[in-house]
Amino acid sequence: MTDVTSATPPTLHPLLADRWSPRAYDIAHELDEAALHSVLEAARWAPSAVNRQPWRFLVGRRGDATFKGVYDALMPGNQLWAGSASALVVGLAATVDAEGAPLRHAPYELGLSVAQLTLQAHALGLHVHQMAGFSDEALLAQFDVPAGYEAFIVLAIGRMGDPEGLPEALRARELAPRERMPLPQIAFSGSWGTPAVG
Amino acid sequence: MTDVTSATPPTLHPLLADRWSPRAYDIAHELDEAALHSVLEAARWAPSAVNRQPWRFLVGRRGDATFKGVYDALMPGNQLWAGSASALVVGLAATVDAEGAPLRHAPYELGLSVAQLTLQAHALGLHVHQMAGFSDEALLAQFDVPAGYEAFIVLAIGRMGDPEGLPEALRARELAPRERMPLPQIAFSGSWGTPAVG
Repeated sequence: MTDVTSATPPTLHPLLADRWSPRAYDIAHELDEAALHSVLEAARWAPSAVNRQPWRFLVGRRGDATFKGVYDALMPGNQLWAGSASALVVGLAATVDAEGAPLRHAPYELGLSVAQLTLQAHALGLHVHQMAGFSDEALLAQFDVPAGYEAFIVLAIGRMGDPEGLPEALRARELAPRERMPLPQIAFSGSWGTPAVG
Repeated sequence: MTDVTSATPPTLHPLLADRWSPRAYDIAHELDEAALHSVLEAARWAPSAVNRQPWRFLVGRRGDATFKGVYDALMPGNQLWAGSASALVVGLAATVDAEGAPLRHAPYELGLSVAQLTLQAHALGLHVHQMAGFSDEALLAQFDVPAGYEAFIVLAIGRMGDPEGLPEALRARELAPRERMPLPQIAFSGSWGTPAVG
């Protein structure tokens, strides 16, 4: 596990440099009330336009009915590993207001909120793996989600486990170095395509 | 400035507990290359579905043409204060793929990326204030943004200044305590509306 962050330069705060999304979770770990409260608090304090706070969360802890319901809605590839997480949390956003008008920034703001949750989890020695691969229809129906809310993400939260315990196909992905596009391809100045930094 | 985070419980990492969005920026501060590189790196390392990395950034530093162009596209209420920021950065996302199919998670993932940028800025002693109030048409045209990208946010990045220097109407907002909905209204378990934590 020593090289997963080797491509990250040292100018990053450790919470960011060390953040990554494992698939190997420790099935012996349980998420206690204090830790759950802490990560949800981090999500709660995200900024949003006119302080609208469009984010909502459905929280299942391993062993409870919500966890099972969320797990059952995952795509089979995610079910291979996510059952060992200590919690499965659905991230939803109100994408229309009370009058039915679209809230264009709601998914963006849910992202701000989940990033804060994720970094707080890392501060507690936990990890978060986000999954877009799930049936949102299954989740919306199962939890009586009101009209106007959409499910965007499921978060597997837990303590990292031994990657040797993963199925072989997942183990290789787990140990591969993280990669991203170089900065000159994503940050511009002056005109589109002109790198902002060298 | 002592009470702006008083409602935030102490279980949060200081980077999250102390994060807030000032309007008073220090016009004497300049964002150097190293700091700019650092905050963009933080954005770059966010997670995204199938590692698609849909986020893009247009970076203006006070005094350059990009800063002026972004400033000119801001709504008047934001122009009252944002000109003192050291940088104005537009956050964009690719909302369709190469075949024109919608990328539903792109705005969400831009949010993940901007949250990381914001927390890295705070780790450097800087602040970030996000603005949805701008003319995206003005920005898209001015910077020749390719079809398929949308501008979601403008970030004012800089060193916090003296709120006494703000216009009076803004000063009151600057000094007001931060508020959020209580956790039982945003995090549920079992069924929608049932609080996940007390």
